[in-house]
Amino acid sequence: MIVHDTEIRVCYADVDQMGFVYYGNYLKYYEIARTETLRSIGLSYRRMEEEGVMMPVLKAGLTYRQAARYDDLLRVRVLIKELPKGVRMDFEYEVYDSCNRLLNHGFTQLAFMRASDHRPCPPPAIFMERLRPFFD
Amino acid sequence: MIVHDTEIRVCYADVDQMGFVYYGNYLKYYEIARTETLRSIGLSYRRMEEEGVMMPVLKAGLTYRQAARYDDLLRVRVLIKELPKGVRMDFEYEVYDSCNRLLNHGFTQLAFMRASDHRPCPPPAIFMERLRPFFD
Amino acid sequence: MIVHDTEIRVCYADVDQMGFVYYGNYLKYYEIARTETLRSIGLSYRRMEEEGVMMPVLKAGLTYRQAARYDDLLRVRVLIKELPKGVRMDFEYEVYDSCNRLLNHGFTQLAFMRASDHRPCPPPAIFMERLRPFFD
Amino acid sequence: MIVHDTEIRVCYADVDQMGFVYYGNYLKYYEIARTETLRSIGLSYRRMEEEGVMMPVLKAGLTYRQAARYDDLLRVRVLIKELPKGVRMDFEYEVYDSCNRLLNHGFTQLAFMRASDHRPCPPPAIFMERLRPFFD
Repeated sequence: MIVHDTEIRVCYADVDQMGFVYYGNYLKYYEIARTETLRSIGLSYRRMEEEGVMMPVLKAGLTYRQAARYDDLLRVRVLIKELPKGVRMDFEYEVYDSCNRLLNHGFTQLAFMRASDHRPCPPPAIFMERLRPFFD
Repeated sequence: MIVHDTEIRVCYADVDQMGFVYYGNYLKYYEIARTETLRSIGLSYRRMEEEGVMMPVLKAGLTYRQAARYDDLLRVRVLIKELPKGVRMDFEYEVYDSCNRLLNHGFTQLAFMRASDHRPCPPPAIFMERLRPFFD
Repeated sequence: MIVHDTEIRVCYADVDQMGFVYYGNYLKYYEIARTETLRSIGLSYRRMEEEGVMMPVLKAGLTYRQAARYDDLLRVRVLIKELPKGVRMDFEYEVYDSCNRLLNHGFTQLAFMRASDHRPCPPPAIFMERLRPFFD
Repeated sequence: MIVHDTEIRVCYADVDQMGFVYYGNYLKYYEIARTETLRSIGLSYRRMEEEGVMMPVLKAGLTYRQAARYDDLLRVRVLIKELPKGVRMDFEYEVYDSCNRLLNHGFTQLAFMRASDHRPCPPPAIFMERLRPFFD
């Protein structure tokens, strides 16, 4: 299992007139934390795209418990609990405030897709190499 | 049951470098369509907030089947299948392209909340009055 | 001269905790109105990109006089006062509320750029053909 | 004069289908860097709002020279060259990539406004106290 935390400071643009982070922006926070989690194990999502493999999202879900507010310093935890299965990969997310209260949690399921023809494909070899040690 | 369609034109800002609408932006499209659905039965979400009742989102889920692209004219269908239960209300969404292909679908569960003390509250009377005829 | 109005409804995602449209979102409104203005004279920005010409922005400016609010129905006026000069083209913008008060105004200067090598290029022939009748 | 640098990593949500950061997103980057610049001299924009003073933007301008791309680590430099004059305050911005190339620069002019009645007001005393040492 991989667990990685990323800090995200809530900016003014992301907060709505209730004074809460707009509900759709958490999918952006999940994306940022997902990229940093991959980087932490030596994988660059950017390079993977440049080499012709993209990861579109197939499914996403979010459960909101408490609202985040402007200027909050959030901790976004990403959990990878399993290796990719076939062409799919699951990520889970937990967003905490600076008092370690769980604000929301969610998941995304992504696919590996060839950029050239937009067809599903297996994960790149480097991807599996970097992930595998965490699942032995 | 209430079914209402809203057209949304995909703008440049909403599309990512894959050429697809960024996955988080659909929650914005859902919000726009939700507001228009309420407007279509004589309910103004804006006025409700001005009168002290807000509707934060408790849960959301999305299933992506096909990507929308820049300048696509989407049809976002909102389905309200049940009256609010207690302080909660469910909405379902279906996004179609101009060929009537289903691109993605999802749901949100919202709560009614008093702006004054951020406590859950029942839906305003006008809200139930406007909804009820569709569920008799 | 070309003058074209586009209506834009302010969504919840675009409003900040002051209750005002976030200042950066007007550049998105300008983009939407720019695209509709071109469409109104038979030009598709989408098709132009597909045919290999992009229009990145070189300069932008905005002057804010009054704030727009959630659910406001804005009228975004685009003014094209001159034909493209060389590889550049200027657009001006005026945003009005439903009482015809000017909320803000601005401009953008865009370039024509070949997608293949990211070099400046002249406007496509069709572009000039459609614009010219308005400037005779 | 105050000069302060803030690092911002470009996320996927912020990039358009040209592969460039969408032009409107730089106003968000400017906002993030402005907040961090104030924090660096002991000022919390959040606390100022909580104490009843807001800073809406009056004018903004941007000049784009090179595009930023996905996953770039940008350095956003904020320059405060003068103390607030009356109810207004100017900020300048320079965005650099990791090779220290200037990608774009811009400015914003903000006003101090009382939250209670939305009227212009002088900067809070603490604000001037923290700024003044940099301009002696």
